Amino acid sequence: MPILNKDMTLCISLAATPSNIGTHFHNYLYEALGLNFIYKAFAPTDLAQAIAGIRGLGIRGAAVSMPYKEDVIALIDVMDASAAAIDSVNTIVNSGGVLTAYNTDYLAIARLLESRAIDPASTVLVQGSGGMAKAVAAALYDAGFAHVSIVARNEVRGQALAALYGFAWLPEVGDATAGMLINVTPLGMAGAQESVQSFADAAVRAAEVVFDVVALPAETPLIRAARAAGKQVMTGAEVIAIQAEEQFVLYTGVRPSPELVQEASEFSRS
Amino acid sequence: MPILNKDMTLCISLAATPSNIGTHFHNYLYEALGLNFIYKAFAPTDLAQAIAGIRGLGIRGAAVSMPYKEDVIALIDVMDASAAAIDSVNTIVNSGGVLTAYNTDYLAIARLLESRAIDPASTVLVQGSGGMAKAVAAALYDAGFAHVSIVARNEVRGQALAALYGFAWLPEVGDATAGMLINVTPLGMAGAQESVQSFADAAVRAAEVVFDVVALPAETPLIRAARAAGKQVMTGAEVIAIQAEEQFVLYTGVRPSPELVQEASEFSRS
Repeated sequence: MPILNKDMTLCISLAATPSNIGTHFHNYLYEALGLNFIYKAFAPTDLAQAIAGIRGLGIRGAAVSMPYKEDVIALIDVMDASAAAIDSVNTIVNSGGVLTAYNTDYLAIARLLESRAIDPASTVLVQGSGGMAKAVAAALYDAGFAHVSIVARNEVRGQALAALYGFAWLPEVGDATAGMLINVTPLGMAGAQESVQSFADAAVRAAEVVFDVVALPAETPLIRAARAAGKQVMTGAEVIAIQAEEQFVLYTGVRPSPELVQEASEFSRS
Repeated sequence: MPILNKDMTLCISLAATPSNIGTHFHNYLYEALGLNFIYKAFAPTDLAQAIAGIRGLGIRGAAVSMPYKEDVIALIDVMDASAAAIDSVNTIVNSGGVLTAYNTDYLAIARLLESRAIDPASTVLVQGSGGMAKAVAAALYDAGFAHVSIVARNEVRGQALAALYGFAWLPEVGDATAGMLINVTPLGMAGAQESVQSFADAAVRAAEVVFDVVALPAETPLIRAARAAGKQVMTGAEVIAIQAEEQFVLYTGVRPSPELVQEASEFSRS
């Protein structure tokens, strides 16, 4: 039986429809590392009051999900560069009453790009213009990528995102090819569009690296095609694991081993 | 290892210096009864923000301890009679965003008096004039006791409390005797006054019932003297257990068996 105690540090998540992933991931690591922390998901009834509660109760950290990632900006004290780069917050850290906002999706994508040592001179096609596409574009720009095209049906959002970093904009993929393909749309995601391959086989064959931000299922049609073609792949599951690890480090100051992160990730999806 | 999940209902406590008692008591019963609840103590940095957090995060209940029992009144929506009777709150229940305040110390003392079937025609000496003394006086009055004297060095508070219920006031116990003796001062409490017996042996001998609200140690000099003299006793530990049980019922809607309450109480003090 869990022996909870008064001194435990609480971390939470704020989402309209919480999943168990964060609650399982963080509590698994607290237990494995012997940290006197506890983590629980919340569906807030009022965002401003929830943030007041973080201050008033001394809650250490909060993951921020849809639909609060932008609304929360007005309620925190300090924007870290990772959140400021894309005007989107997915992590709040409370240090003695000062709330600092981060975006660990951005941090995770930047870390993934860095870990694969992909040449910034590569051409890149980014399909999508939502919040996660913003994180991808910012991370590409900050890593020195300049030959990037944003592919988005939504002309206003697509052009705005492209213009922000001096990237090109395309309304559709068409016959475009690039050294790196990145899907940041729901194409291939579990649900109605699960069987859709977000880039065609020809584009996959022409690429060296294929990155699908979709995390469920673990292997999308795009990732399957890229693996079949022997391409280097980067997956949404990797982004989720790394961003969760970065949140964990921000909250606790402790960096778990890659093996523990792997275990916690598997546990969180079980 | 504790498998926490997103759907757990959170109950908390708010105290300047939290103890582990509530955290252990409630979590023990949640586990024993298979309730998907979790309980954790907090030392709030700001009471109004903490109460906002109860609303915004949908926290189900909060125990309220020193020094917040009166300040919290302005922040809640509905005062139950138990809290209104003594202008003091020790329990908040959040039902769909409406915060109702209770005082389960009052409820516990009323239940104890009722369970012992003490004749309301008895004379009573109540030593003390603080928050708990208010709860004792209100419960006595509501149970029909009329021959009550409040003994309090603090003349303003003592007279005010006595006047509220048409009771008498005495500045000191002196040679006074009564059928029931109630100590609601820190005399006999673990610490500097641990060895002080709050009513003299002569008063104990003359009484039929002796009630010491001091809970630590479990046996105060007064309770020891009363037991030695063969008197009926009521203890602070009983008040704590009953008030915690009433809180538990208010939060969960489930009344645990007396055996489970006993187990949880023992666990909470271990």
